[in-house]
Amino acid sequence: MTWTLAARAARLEPSTIREILKLTERPGVISLAGGLPSAEGFPVAAMAEACARVLREHPREALQYAASEGFGPLREWVAAELATHGLQVQAAQIIITTGSQQGLDLVGKVLIDPGSRVAVELPTYLGALHAFNPYEAQYLTVPCDDEGPSPERLDAAAGARFLYLLPNFQNPSGRCLGAARRLALAERARAIGLPIVEDNPYGELWFEAPPPPPVSAAMAGEAVYLGSFSKVLAPGLRLGYVVAPPPLFPKLLQAKQAADLHTPGFNQRVVYEVIKDGFLQQHLPALRARYKAQRDAMRDALQRHLPPGCRWNVPAGGMFFWVELPDALDATALLAKAVDAGVAFVPGAAFFADDARANTLRLSYVTVAPARIEQGVATLGRVLAEALAS
Amino acid sequence: MTWTLAARAARLEPSTIREILKLTERPGVISLAGGLPSAEGFPVAAMAEACARVLREHPREALQYAASEGFGPLREWVAAELATHGLQVQAAQIIITTGSQQGLDLVGKVLIDPGSRVAVELPTYLGALHAFNPYEAQYLTVPCDDEGPSPERLDAAAGARFLYLLPNFQNPSGRCLGAARRLALAERARAIGLPIVEDNPYGELWFEAPPPPPVSAAMAGEAVYLGSFSKVLAPGLRLGYVVAPPPLFPKLLQAKQAADLHTPGFNQRVVYEVIKDGFLQQHLPALRARYKAQRDAMRDALQRHLPPGCRWNVPAGGMFFWVELPDALDATALLAKAVDAGVAFVPGAAFFADDARANTLRLSYVTVAPARIEQGVATLGRVLAEALAS
Repeated sequence: MTWTLAARAARLEPSTIREILKLTERPGVISLAGGLPSAEGFPVAAMAEACARVLREHPREALQYAASEGFGPLREWVAAELATHGLQVQAAQIIITTGSQQGLDLVGKVLIDPGSRVAVELPTYLGALHAFNPYEAQYLTVPCDDEGPSPERLDAAAGARFLYLLPNFQNPSGRCLGAARRLALAERARAIGLPIVEDNPYGELWFEAPPPPPVSAAMAGEAVYLGSFSKVLAPGLRLGYVVAPPPLFPKLLQAKQAADLHTPGFNQRVVYEVIKDGFLQQHLPALRARYKAQRDAMRDALQRHLPPGCRWNVPAGGMFFWVELPDALDATALLAKAVDAGVAFVPGAAFFADDARANTLRLSYVTVAPARIEQGVATLGRVLAEALAS
Repeated sequence: MTWTLAARAARLEPSTIREILKLTERPGVISLAGGLPSAEGFPVAAMAEACARVLREHPREALQYAASEGFGPLREWVAAELATHGLQVQAAQIIITTGSQQGLDLVGKVLIDPGSRVAVELPTYLGALHAFNPYEAQYLTVPCDDEGPSPERLDAAAGARFLYLLPNFQNPSGRCLGAARRLALAERARAIGLPIVEDNPYGELWFEAPPPPPVSAAMAGEAVYLGSFSKVLAPGLRLGYVVAPPPLFPKLLQAKQAADLHTPGFNQRVVYEVIKDGFLQQHLPALRARYKAQRDAMRDALQRHLPPGCRWNVPAGGMFFWVELPDALDATALLAKAVDAGVAFVPGAAFFADDARANTLRLSYVTVAPARIEQGVATLGRVLAEALAS
């Protein structure tokens, strides 16, 4: 039989992280690789109660086909929640998605032609690259410093379909854009007519202070904004959302219908039951405290165990440390050795749209407890020291 | 702000059915439009028990990120189930999807280039057209009779990327391909190298006898086969699956990862808990009996109330009657009048890839009870008779 693949299929590739996750299922390997939220933080009791209530009170509606836009009360909740973060949107602009990964796919489907330029950060979230790649995007990397993309270097991105931006505790770099940088980026983007797609999966996971208002808040309602319940509740529910400016809403909604008709209504109703009476106000402080303690454990372990010449910044929230190794080291080449020694990480190369820096790696501190973090980083330190010595 | 849409966005359009569903939410309107499974058949108690058990026994796994391929035991279950229908596949060929609509989207993403020819039935499932449209397919309609596509007319489809085929109680026509027709189609397709994408959402909803083995069973493992839990359990869970031949599996899996990482693990585990010990063996006979009674009610009502010149075939399973009106009538033009009179249907035009036949409509008998079916069809009969008289 002759199957002819679409040209875009050549741009599909295995997920680096998912391939690594398979390796790390070996017993004895401490995985600092995956961005898996701590299972300790999953609201199991609240979920169980909510499932029972939804199936008792609204079984037919929860199990029937439902609106492609999403469950009305959940959309209202999201709009009210975003307002507390300084982003004023109508519930009618919100589409509930099957994880925010689907939001990225829909954005790509509606906005990217083969060869379209898409501006991204240095480094950028590899899941976004995976979503945009099959639409045959050409990437343009905006120069970045520790505060994110440089507004004065944004003009090179003029004419791109959009700038993909992850301002809060970015995956993988952990950086968080300051308020002034956000305003400057929004101003420059508006001046050159560059649309922004803002992704915010980690914003609630702050340790000392909440991040500044979204860049979208300074874009006069003209940005696309993506959010997720994966990091604040549980990723296995696959619930995210996209806020669409009016000119894009109908096409994003039609793309959503074409993609999976609607996000599971049962999941939407269960999550709404869990959060509607303020559950997150108690849940998030505990989650932040847990992740802060784990961040501290990794910070201390990195100081103790990584050989001279390694550099990292201490994230003020989110899930990741981003480590730059001495230039001579190639993280991808070291991974197999590290896994053999009992620790896994994600080589940083996958997070670059072009000109990958081989001497970078990403460490997650949210999945394993402090004692194992210490042990894992000590192992990593030994592997790196050996590599430097040879 | 200047948003530039991708060329494919021009091929996205509002879903006819979802627009009609909004109309039919008016109180007093009997909807024979939507293909909504009877909520009476939803396994609410079994679901509630399964949710509680999953959250008690495997909360962390159910709520964590999970494999893009899907939950292993559910994939095994599907493979074993398909074997009882004559289709031998490996669990490793199965990807669990977010409804079988997502399977159609992934197939389109991997197989359709702008301008690619895709062969479809006359009429065909409009959700498949919605999924394939944004990949800019060009359709080629295979001539069909009451038994489906004609094998001897298949040669015109040689060179198409694939033939999309819905052999069991097709949506919208209700027809079911006989065993000989299936074998003849498979043989001819193999002879001309035409790949087949077989969609089977309704196969379990038979009234007198199960349908013959899938066309895929005669394709030597070279077809794509799509299935769904929406019609046998509940659509609000959004669970379907795609069986991929080995050359396509990696690309479909990568497309799945890019689209939403994975289908909600919680839903997969809950459904597996519901079905693993033979639940469907008790559940399906009850569902078939309910739908058969409703099919009979609609058959009788159509005979009683539709004016002369209308034609329909009696479906042996599934969810739909397909009605051909006298040539002078345009179902789309009649819809507003019918809704005003208190009944809704889906005009047939949306189910044609080209050369829509305006004098067709689709009626669903699964959503409302027999007395309301009788009342709805009587109203439809009056509206049609009036239109014929004027």
